[in-house]
Amino acid sequence: NDETNKAVKVAVAKGDGIGPEIMDATLRILEAAGANIEPEYIEVGEQVYLSGNSAGITQDTWEIINRNKIILKAPITTPQGKGYKSLNVTMRKSLGLFANVRPVSALHPYVETNFPNMDVVVIRENEEDLYAGIEHQQTQDVVQCLKLITRPGCEKIVRYAFEYAKVYGRKKVTCMVKDNIMKLTDGLFHQVFKEIALEYPDIQNETQIIDIGAARLAANPQNYDVVVTSNLYGDIISDIVAEIAGSVGMAGSANIGTNVAMFEAIHGSAPDIAGENMANPSGLINAAVSMLAHVGQSLTADTIKNAWLATIEEGYHTADIYKEGVSKRKVSTSEFAEQVISRLGRTP
Amino acid sequence: NDETNKAVKVAVAKGDGIGPEIMDATLRILEAAGANIEPEYIEVGEQVYLSGNSAGITQDTWEIINRNKIILKAPITTPQGKGYKSLNVTMRKSLGLFANVRPVSALHPYVETNFPNMDVVVIRENEEDLYAGIEHQQTQDVVQCLKLITRPGCEKIVRYAFEYAKVYGRKKVTCMVKDNIMKLTDGLFHQVFKEIALEYPDIQNETQIIDIGAARLAANPQNYDVVVTSNLYGDIISDIVAEIAGSVGMAGSANIGTNVAMFEAIHGSAPDIAGENMANPSGLINAAVSMLAHVGQSLTADTIKNAWLATIEEGYHTADIYKEGVSKRKVSTSEFAEQVISRLGRTP
Ligand SMILES: CC(C)[C@H](C(=O)O)[C@@H](O)C(=O)O
Ligand SMILES: CC(C)[C@H](C(=O)O)[C@@H](O)C(=O)O
Repeated sequence: NDETNKAVKVAVAKGDGIGPEIMDATLRILEAAGANIEPEYIEVGEQVYLSGNSAGITQDTWEIINRNKIILKAPITTPQGKGYKSLNVTMRKSLGLFANVRPVSALHPYVETNFPNMDVVVIRENEEDLYAGIEHQQTQDVVQCLKLITRPGCEKIVRYAFEYAKVYGRKKVTCMVKDNIMKLTDGLFHQVFKEIALEYPDIQNETQIIDIGAARLAANPQNYDVVVTSNLYGDIISDIVAEIAGSVGMAGSANIGTNVAMFEAIHGSAPDIAGENMANPSGLINAAVSMLAHVGQSLTADTIKNAWLATIEEGYHTADIYKEGVSKRKVSTSEFAEQVISRLGRTP
Repeated sequence: NDETNKAVKVAVAKGDGIGPEIMDATLRILEAAGANIEPEYIEVGEQVYLSGNSAGITQDTWEIINRNKIILKAPITTPQGKGYKSLNVTMRKSLGLFANVRPVSALHPYVETNFPNMDVVVIRENEEDLYAGIEHQQTQDVVQCLKLITRPGCEKIVRYAFEYAKVYGRKKVTCMVKDNIMKLTDGLFHQVFKEIALEYPDIQNETQIIDIGAARLAANPQNYDVVVTSNLYGDIISDIVAEIAGSVGMAGSANIGTNVAMFEAIHGSAPDIAGENMANPSGLINAAVSMLAHVGQSLTADTIKNAWLATIEEGYHTADIYKEGVSKRKVSTSEFAEQVISRLGRTP
């Protein structure tokens, strides 16, 4: 390996549904590229839930995670029913992964989109909001969920967004809130945004109400750069941005905390196509690229990213983005990985 | 007038910002078309707020509304600051306007859109959810907002959506929720949707998680027909649908209750262009068309709708939808109204 001597230990969750297939494809690419990582497999998700563990994760697994501090995670399936808590949310909250970073850019004309120039990073608050998981039943007919917003939570995510913009040379940060209705909660997010924006005079800032903001983002994504918003809005707009760029299957994400970081695709476990070797592993590949950059293996990250780009640009496409006349060949999950591997070393 | 003898009394709010201009345009068209209505003007919004009334509406106005039972309302401006309660929300809640109906269809090629075949109706729950307005500050740094969902609330809106589909010959109703996270609140909405769907075996039904649902709606709106969802999601996706069809300035909405109904554009008061005679009055015109149909003046409603369509199709466009090569002439708010009036009586 070109960058470090000691292998970085990574807790790897193969996930459910299409998880194992896309993880297999991703790990093969990492290995072929010489990523200096040492996977330690963890068992989370469906099987753990169904064994009677309502959180989908055991104490042993928490220990592995806390030891390794880096997680690469495929999507998991949470069984339906009130008894099961979302593992994604539990991990984000328990590990203090406060920032969910979701970059999306168009790959036009290789992947069709109406928005060839879009290049947006959604930076989503990842611990608070309606995701705090505080729900209760008041009467048989009345239920409530608490939307929790704190000043430290807002400060962490907003500062992260501006620092991200600074480090990556981005020009503008847009805040999206609904503070005409939620004056205290969304009002606090907006207030903190205004305060912190003052510390970054070289970066433009703007605030939009989430309804019209999401609408303009969906209609003209090329007008956006970095978008910072609370948990639920970020969940919705990051899927929108990924889907209108071509496919939600292409986007990776980084869940960043002070001590631990977790990297995953933004899509779900797609049980309907599981086991068919047809899923697009690109989301997880991109997540793994972010992971390598995060642990200081930027050269390997770039090598994989370039090979992945070349594969897409040369038209080797999984079914979700395959298009007659644009694509060259429809490939399976594993063939896609082979195509990427065969292009390692290409420069863009 | 062709339909009723007794004029229908309508409480008319001219609104703030661009409100008075687009209301003036709309009322001129209604009058020219022979709509049998008798406006009674009400004073709500900015001036009322600034006179020291934190709700933006006086007791006298409530009496006029309760007497007339039909409201045509232009957008209003709520002054910034925690002391002012949203008038929209107050009116919807106080008057029991439980269903917010927002139809959007493409007018391609007259108004440019990537989605020439889209034709979606968003039916948004209008009284509950985070809009219930229950917010509190727990410590200086911790604030909360309560998301309230009730079974009767879910039943009313879901039944309304299926009845709407039945009456208007629509084929499918899609429910959007986030019940993988909010198992009690969004879970209840989903549960009620499943129950009521059984009563309408001739109408297809499906449920999507709001993140991927909103993403697919933004990427492929032509795959949707009627969408039913809770208040905040409906707020966001209705703006998305309107904007990707061409402009949020085109869509009207009906707020339907058991005794009272209120008709309004879905856009805001746009203070930045107020007084310039350039706003698009189409949203309010379409709202007025819904109002006429609601009070039994369907022939007049159709007459106006057809004249409006002809105006758009013949390329007389306000600035927001004006496009070189597509539009014929850029018109002001008042000129647009004149163009519509000159086409009354046209058939499509
Ligand atoms: C699976 C689900 C809990 C998760 C979320 O809502 O955050 C997913 O949609 C995501 O965006 O990562
Ligand atoms: C003005 C605002 C309170 C309102 C809402 O959030 O409902 C508006 O966005 C709408 O969609 O009618």
